[in-house]
Amino acid sequence: MMYTQIPELRPDTPLLDAIDAPEQLKNLDLAELQTLAAELRAYILYAAGQSGGHFGANLGVIELTVALHRILDTPRDRLVWDVGHQAYPHKVLTGRRERLPTIRSKNGLAAFPARDESEFDTFGVGHSSTSISAALGMSLALRYQQQQARVACVIGDGAMTAGMAFEAMNDAVQHQADLLVVLNDNDMSISGSVGGLAHHLSGLWQNGLYVHVHDDGTPEVRQRPNWDFRARKPTSDHFKVNTDNLFKAIGFEYFGPVDGHDLPELLRVLNALKDRKGCRLLHVYTTKGKGFTPAEQDQIGYHAIAKLGANKLGAVSTKYASHKPVKYSDVFGQFLCDQAALDSRLLAITPAMCEGSGMVEFAKRYPDRFFDVAIAEQHALTLAAGMACEGIKPVVAIYSTFLQRGYDQLIHDICLQNLDVTFGIDRAGLVGEDGATHAGTFDYAFMRTLPNLVIMAPKDENECRQMLHTAYQHPGPAAVRYPRGAGVGSKIEETFTALPIGKAEVLATFNVDHPQQIAFLAFGSRTTVTLEAAAQLAETGLGITVVNMRFIKPLDTALLEQLAQTHQAFVTVEEHAVMAGAGSAVNEALHQMLIIKPVLNLGLSDRFLAHGEHGEMLKEEGLDAAGISRSVSAFLSKLAAL
Amino acid sequence: MMYTQIPELRPDTPLLDAIDAPEQLKNLDLAELQTLAAELRAYILYAAGQSGGHFGANLGVIELTVALHRILDTPRDRLVWDVGHQAYPHKVLTGRRERLPTIRSKNGLAAFPARDESEFDTFGVGHSSTSISAALGMSLALRYQQQQARVACVIGDGAMTAGMAFEAMNDAVQHQADLLVVLNDNDMSISGSVGGLAHHLSGLWQNGLYVHVHDDGTPEVRQRPNWDFRARKPTSDHFKVNTDNLFKAIGFEYFGPVDGHDLPELLRVLNALKDRKGCRLLHVYTTKGKGFTPAEQDQIGYHAIAKLGANKLGAVSTKYASHKPVKYSDVFGQFLCDQAALDSRLLAITPAMCEGSGMVEFAKRYPDRFFDVAIAEQHALTLAAGMACEGIKPVVAIYSTFLQRGYDQLIHDICLQNLDVTFGIDRAGLVGEDGATHAGTFDYAFMRTLPNLVIMAPKDENECRQMLHTAYQHPGPAAVRYPRGAGVGSKIEETFTALPIGKAEVLATFNVDHPQQIAFLAFGSRTTVTLEAAAQLAETGLGITVVNMRFIKPLDTALLEQLAQTHQAFVTVEEHAVMAGAGSAVNEALHQMLIIKPVLNLGLSDRFLAHGEHGEMLKEEGLDAAGISRSVSAFLSKLAAL
Repeated sequence: MMYTQIPELRPDTPLLDAIDAPEQLKNLDLAELQTLAAELRAYILYAAGQSGGHFGANLGVIELTVALHRILDTPRDRLVWDVGHQAYPHKVLTGRRERLPTIRSKNGLAAFPARDESEFDTFGVGHSSTSISAALGMSLALRYQQQQARVACVIGDGAMTAGMAFEAMNDAVQHQADLLVVLNDNDMSISGSVGGLAHHLSGLWQNGLYVHVHDDGTPEVRQRPNWDFRARKPTSDHFKVNTDNLFKAIGFEYFGPVDGHDLPELLRVLNALKDRKGCRLLHVYTTKGKGFTPAEQDQIGYHAIAKLGANKLGAVSTKYASHKPVKYSDVFGQFLCDQAALDSRLLAITPAMCEGSGMVEFAKRYPDRFFDVAIAEQHALTLAAGMACEGIKPVVAIYSTFLQRGYDQLIHDICLQNLDVTFGIDRAGLVGEDGATHAGTFDYAFMRTLPNLVIMAPKDENECRQMLHTAYQHPGPAAVRYPRGAGVGSKIEETFTALPIGKAEVLATFNVDHPQQIAFLAFGSRTTVTLEAAAQLAETGLGITVVNMRFIKPLDTALLEQLAQTHQAFVTVEEHAVMAGAGSAVNEALHQMLIIKPVLNLGLSDRFLAHGEHGEMLKEEGLDAAGISRSVSAFLSKLAAL
Repeated sequence: MMYTQIPELRPDTPLLDAIDAPEQLKNLDLAELQTLAAELRAYILYAAGQSGGHFGANLGVIELTVALHRILDTPRDRLVWDVGHQAYPHKVLTGRRERLPTIRSKNGLAAFPARDESEFDTFGVGHSSTSISAALGMSLALRYQQQQARVACVIGDGAMTAGMAFEAMNDAVQHQADLLVVLNDNDMSISGSVGGLAHHLSGLWQNGLYVHVHDDGTPEVRQRPNWDFRARKPTSDHFKVNTDNLFKAIGFEYFGPVDGHDLPELLRVLNALKDRKGCRLLHVYTTKGKGFTPAEQDQIGYHAIAKLGANKLGAVSTKYASHKPVKYSDVFGQFLCDQAALDSRLLAITPAMCEGSGMVEFAKRYPDRFFDVAIAEQHALTLAAGMACEGIKPVVAIYSTFLQRGYDQLIHDICLQNLDVTFGIDRAGLVGEDGATHAGTFDYAFMRTLPNLVIMAPKDENECRQMLHTAYQHPGPAAVRYPRGAGVGSKIEETFTALPIGKAEVLATFNVDHPQQIAFLAFGSRTTVTLEAAAQLAETGLGITVVNMRFIKPLDTALLEQLAQTHQAFVTVEEHAVMAGAGSAVNEALHQMLIIKPVLNLGLSDRFLAHGEHGEMLKEEGLDAAGISRSVSAFLSKLAAL
């Protein structure tokens, strides 16, 4: 059945409603399993409308999930889902059906598999391409402990481009591990799949052959039967004639491709392969968004969806808004287009996040200056370094959390060589519903310890634009770090004005004649609420200066020194771990100048925060205006009592 | 000519002595080029004896280097050397012949290609597997700027196992870049090559075929002629029958293998391929240590050598030595063997650093518990996480600088899931001759911002052993960070005694009745010299307490609070960047407890330090006893003047 819209009412799913654990699938016959798959698809559609979240990939793995849980003995057999954009059906079949509509909300199900949520979630994921490594670890551990459980993992073709998947395959073969890798090939990552691997997979398709799996698990190369699939993207002749198989070359046994929506065949093949020894790769061909017409037709747009009726910008404080708030990724996208028009040396790089990073317009206007390198963060950074060696001024768009994947390359290939690379670091700070795996709360720490790197964080949309321009003008590595979602609604100046490097901005002063003065040092996304908190506190008559620090590195130490002459204490506020964060940089600078004053460091506590609504999470961490004000009052009381 | 020992006197190299730039190679005929190669080999051997350093790989690329510089028009054509363990001949031919014996010493040549050293060094390297990304960046930048220069890179088979090499090939094909990748296959990384790729390369060899390069650059599959090579490691039948070619599968044109010591054939093939369009891979087969019998026979032992007559342990302060100083990697190796004997759940993982990490004995005694995953740091960490999910207690041996490659996996796969993985982090702090690319001076910063992770640093060998045991006993992620080289000569207690988590050790007190008391908080490798410095300062009658902090996380805040009651100021000392380092953690903790005291943070300044002798570098950074004492005196004078 094809759906054309997301049902607002819960569909009737009597068979599914009876499944509380995957072992119950063993009692169903083929016809019932097919009904179950249909009900599962209907329910996933409905639940996604309630919760929002990842979408297309889940619809593509309905049959595969049913087949895997029917054939394997989970949780005794270990099943690892890569990334987990595809784990919703798995969650439904493993006792979490009724909680699915709560996914991504506070105290609801996590957006991804999570070990503390279910024994069926063997490995927590969030970033792609970890599944083969994790599954191999399990397989080797089970072998060493002489346990007999099977190990399988499901990895998408998009995730397969990341180097660590290759590293894991290389190692699995070394150990002749017993491991079934299911390659869920939907010809897409979040954006379209790119690169030699994507061409290779297309080539394997277009050669018209497949490796049939006999019931005893042995392979046989055959002509592929006619499948009712929409055409794969055509590939060039170079790839078509090439029948060399990458997975066989690295040492895996290769099977397929098989039709990932043909449940009877999936059941037969998985049954045949489940106890075969060694490193096996089953190539399964699926359609992202399967069964929902709009998603099949717009696979990028339906990678994830917002919940029905949701405000796309999310809740935004409009207290200081003079204009309609704009998403920071859109500010970045506009900067990119405008700067590129002014400077032909600008080339832009993204590791498979064209849409998320706001680069769609740029990619359209400057196709020869846009480089989507696939899910390959390490390569993305060193590619930029190589370009910079040739006088290009590359701009790398990357989420804070994914920059962690290119850390060594940031250090050696860019900062150590002091190369002129600009970073637009998106999704910095807490990210709300995606949870801890996507939070960007460590980047000040891991970046500010590096020599040569300039680090900025804007208070609003316009400052973000001008900082990106500043970073671009700076003849060395420079990063601008901005949060997920919309800004505060500032007026965006079209004209570029580079900020002086390392200079902060005094935003406001309150009660300058009060004998006790407190200096608030705000960083990036917490600047506006800091100003709100300060205004509240100032109502008691307290003397306050509020500074928008702008630069995490280099810090405006001259201003700190000046403030120290008239202020009794400092308060630092940031949306980052307190440990080694921006406030910590202030502490160092003050000590170095022998300024011996109390400092209150406000930021995120030392724990991984589960998913929830972004504003709620900030409140919980005391980083809303009320929380800041409360913390500062307590601090001042304690100071008074010293 | 085969050498059997390293010449102590400079050999006669008249032809080489006349080469000051590679363009001069264009004037030499084939016979002269062969003489030049022989002279180059003799000179490299001699110079390595003078300087120490990487060895085997350099001897393997003599002919390849001569051929590349003869055929390409460097520096106009871009030549990128991966890792640069193989760049000595390149340095000699590009105007740095006479400086080669100074390599790795202060103000001498860098151990690796370095952009600020020569225009022929197109890209600075140090960590492996970056060359294809960097060269691709150059190639795409040149194309975009419509420049006609050629781009080639040389990458070893060991380096090819790292995921980022795969990411780069995937992307190069996407862009149909004009790029020549020379795969220098010597069947080795630093240790032996492992994994599916190594088997694959053996399989390509054992199938008896090769892809011949016609003079016009077109390929033809042929039977391989008989080469005078020592036999490659045999591979299993599974690989032998498999003729699928990984490089062709990903979309590269594949040529070879060719004999990398056959200079005429190399010249012919490179000439035929140099202007061919697209992504080309030339598989060159070389022998590590070629021409020097001992190195050909012990390729692991001769990966790098010490300079003739050098003291292998390096200069060690013996002031506090009660015993013969032991290398920290040997302490780790002994811990591993002893702990494994007590606990069968211990499995050990290394990313291709078996020898460097001191694991040879363990690998011999427990072959089924030893996992060398090849150069694949990302995979190494997630493999450990997968094992930990199954009740194994994995121990990961990794250099601080290489942990940067697995940072995201440390965060998500290990710390976020709070998995029980132990890290032995070697080469932390400055590393001397290898220079900035191998320094481990950022790990406190990037680790201490992460929740759940316990971080320790030992003052001496015995504490290192006990800390490793403590980390192992701790039921969550825990890391012990220790420096390169030997300890201070402490007595090593065989019995394991777990340290209380988060408890520091008061090492000494001086002049307890003095009204002004200073607390020295020392971390890890700087503890002994801090004690020396304190003892010197105490001679003036100053009151001093010296604390061996032991834990960077969690910090012993109770002790800090206690010390604050009687001490006027704190001094923190560490072999790590001051920015976001361990001292910075002390600052945060003091502020949080509203302890408002002066703190002097001593550590490394905010710059990348070039190579030099380890002790000299520490002295330059003011981290020897005299430097610490000097800094503290200045600090106290300034405090007195406040």
